[in-house]
Amino acid sequence: MVIAQGGSIMFSAGHHRILSTLSRHGSMSRTDLARNLALSKASVTLLVRDLIARGVLREQELVFGQGRPSVTLGLCSDAASFVGISLQTDPVTVVLTDPHGRVLAEHSMRREADPAICFPQLAAAVETVRAQAGPDVGPIAGIGVAQPGFVSRDRRVCLASAALGWVDLDVAGRLSSLTGLPVFVENDANALILGEQLFGPTGDRPDFSLVFVGDGIGSAHIVNGRLHRGHHGGAGELSHSPIAFGSQDALPCRCGNRGCLETVSSLQAIRGAARQVGLTTDIAELVALTANGHPEALAILHRAGTALGIALAQLVQMFDPSQVVVILDPALKESVFGRVLRQEMETHVLRRAGVQTALTLRGAEANSFATGAAGLAAQHYLFGSDWT
Amino acid sequence: MVIAQGGSIMFSAGHHRILSTLSRHGSMSRTDLARNLALSKASVTLLVRDLIARGVLREQELVFGQGRPSVTLGLCSDAASFVGISLQTDPVTVVLTDPHGRVLAEHSMRREADPAICFPQLAAAVETVRAQAGPDVGPIAGIGVAQPGFVSRDRRVCLASAALGWVDLDVAGRLSSLTGLPVFVENDANALILGEQLFGPTGDRPDFSLVFVGDGIGSAHIVNGRLHRGHHGGAGELSHSPIAFGSQDALPCRCGNRGCLETVSSLQAIRGAARQVGLTTDIAELVALTANGHPEALAILHRAGTALGIALAQLVQMFDPSQVVVILDPALKESVFGRVLRQEMETHVLRRAGVQTALTLRGAEANSFATGAAGLAAQHYLFGSDWT
Repeated sequence: MVIAQGGSIMFSAGHHRILSTLSRHGSMSRTDLARNLALSKASVTLLVRDLIARGVLREQELVFGQGRPSVTLGLCSDAASFVGISLQTDPVTVVLTDPHGRVLAEHSMRREADPAICFPQLAAAVETVRAQAGPDVGPIAGIGVAQPGFVSRDRRVCLASAALGWVDLDVAGRLSSLTGLPVFVENDANALILGEQLFGPTGDRPDFSLVFVGDGIGSAHIVNGRLHRGHHGGAGELSHSPIAFGSQDALPCRCGNRGCLETVSSLQAIRGAARQVGLTTDIAELVALTANGHPEALAILHRAGTALGIALAQLVQMFDPSQVVVILDPALKESVFGRVLRQEMETHVLRRAGVQTALTLRGAEANSFATGAAGLAAQHYLFGSDWT
Repeated sequence: MVIAQGGSIMFSAGHHRILSTLSRHGSMSRTDLARNLALSKASVTLLVRDLIARGVLREQELVFGQGRPSVTLGLCSDAASFVGISLQTDPVTVVLTDPHGRVLAEHSMRREADPAICFPQLAAAVETVRAQAGPDVGPIAGIGVAQPGFVSRDRRVCLASAALGWVDLDVAGRLSSLTGLPVFVENDANALILGEQLFGPTGDRPDFSLVFVGDGIGSAHIVNGRLHRGHHGGAGELSHSPIAFGSQDALPCRCGNRGCLETVSSLQAIRGAARQVGLTTDIAELVALTANGHPEALAILHRAGTALGIALAQLVQMFDPSQVVVILDPALKESVFGRVLRQEMETHVLRRAGVQTALTLRGAEANSFATGAAGLAAQHYLFGSDWT
């Protein structure tokens, strides 16, 4: 078993400035790096030489511009690899990615809430994906964990997770002592948006919001390029935003209130409503029924999409992000649910000339959260400890 | 007419560091200043000597601690004064404040939307408050303007204000050319929270939200010590957050939608609902009726408070601020409106052990917005151009 120790201890602040710039902007020549970082060409040349010798950067291609040809520098795909663990759903997904977020190996397993069982299994899963990926993969530099619930600001401790039944559990400490690797823990929605920021198409925007529709409904916000955690680490708790409070049929929520968004728009709520009228609880089958005009199926998805669209309008009115990305079941995305939610959001956002918040619906992938979790470790490797 | 030129051009970056520290933390000795700013005692001594000579700082009192007595430094109340103009309501309020936010003079006048009339009147009002305050007041260092609508990021141009009918109007340029003073323009809610941050009791919190209930309902957010403007400058537009969308009696809003928060909870909405059932439209009188158990008056204020409480719960779920300050009519604050809104917010926020967002209701003062506007100019004077 060869798991290399990694993390930010490997690199100096100067190294991190080079790596984070290349990660954000893609390949770049030494001259452009020096200009971008306001460093001397000589300093950049020294730092780059060191990173090339250590197998982190490589020279990529000749660019024939004005004067003599120059060479661009890029991150080596095998510089390091990163484990991402999603405890967001059962089964648990574990991935191994390269520094660009490409998934090299994937493993899934039953979610065990008992820490005495859970952590040894997770440590074994790290070995499994490492072995699966083969010998040509960079040493594992760290592990990221995405989990439902509240996580301490230092990304080590699960403060409270109703889904897992954990309170004040030192997730990073336990997993780190079993694997010898640095571990970073985040709330699931936060891990998802940080993964998007590092690897995703929206990542270069300084402010955007991300919403995912699962058994609950989570959201996270990047403000001025940084994750907005909120004062108690609870920003983005969209699931329990009151939405159907006024109507006669406001449903009770597991949190103790009535009319929370998740009682109407979550997958669990949609399945529950379908079950109640004797329809299939398979989302894709339910969507197929609406395509054929089934009135009860239509009513369920229409109501769920409307409520989420209203919640998104409230989000836009309050946060004014440049873009909202909604990650949802691929079948829902192409259904009346997706159409109504877009229409409701656009209807209820205050219209102003020339100003519109872009809404993107994106089909969830089984490993979205795990890849986001791997991004936690990748960000630490590339950007150092200063990136949150 | 003697209006001294002022603004950040007066001070170096070192001066601003001293002034902003004293403004935020109150009086301080040279030794504490040096420690706080990580400057040498000699540098602080030089900078302070200069600021004392210029009449900006003064030595305040002897402190007998360990060793020899030391002297604390404080901002001179007559170092400079600041004009604050609120176009938030008709009549317009104009105040003159000292660097601590104390109001030295106040003037009110009819609001004119026609720029050709409005700006000369505002320039004359600057003279009026200056004359009212007398000769012992510091030179006017700048003017702040709080206005409804959207303002450019550089605080100069009104991009759009439905209430004033202004589009792309260079408010700062016009008023500056008439007065010779630097002018800073802000959206009304933003000016209010920036004034709170500089002068108010909540100001030292790194993240808090402020909501005001007037003819519309505005909000603003301080995140990590800075104003959260949103991508299009539209964060905090609570007035048009959809709230009563599902109910049969969702009222049409001036924005074109139905069921916006302001159709239920604003002063205008409360007066409208009272008028419709033949009750007084005077808020204090309406509150007096509810105290006597008048059922229709109770229903109106109960509904208005409920909707605002729900909107606050949504705000807390999304932003997770450390505190929410609601500024409202003093009569409403002590009424069923205030009680219901607190109860609804507390009911609908997800409960977590040991975590609670503080809610403060504060009676509005006639010059709240104008004082906030003066804070815009004071912040620029004290903190330099780098403070937004």
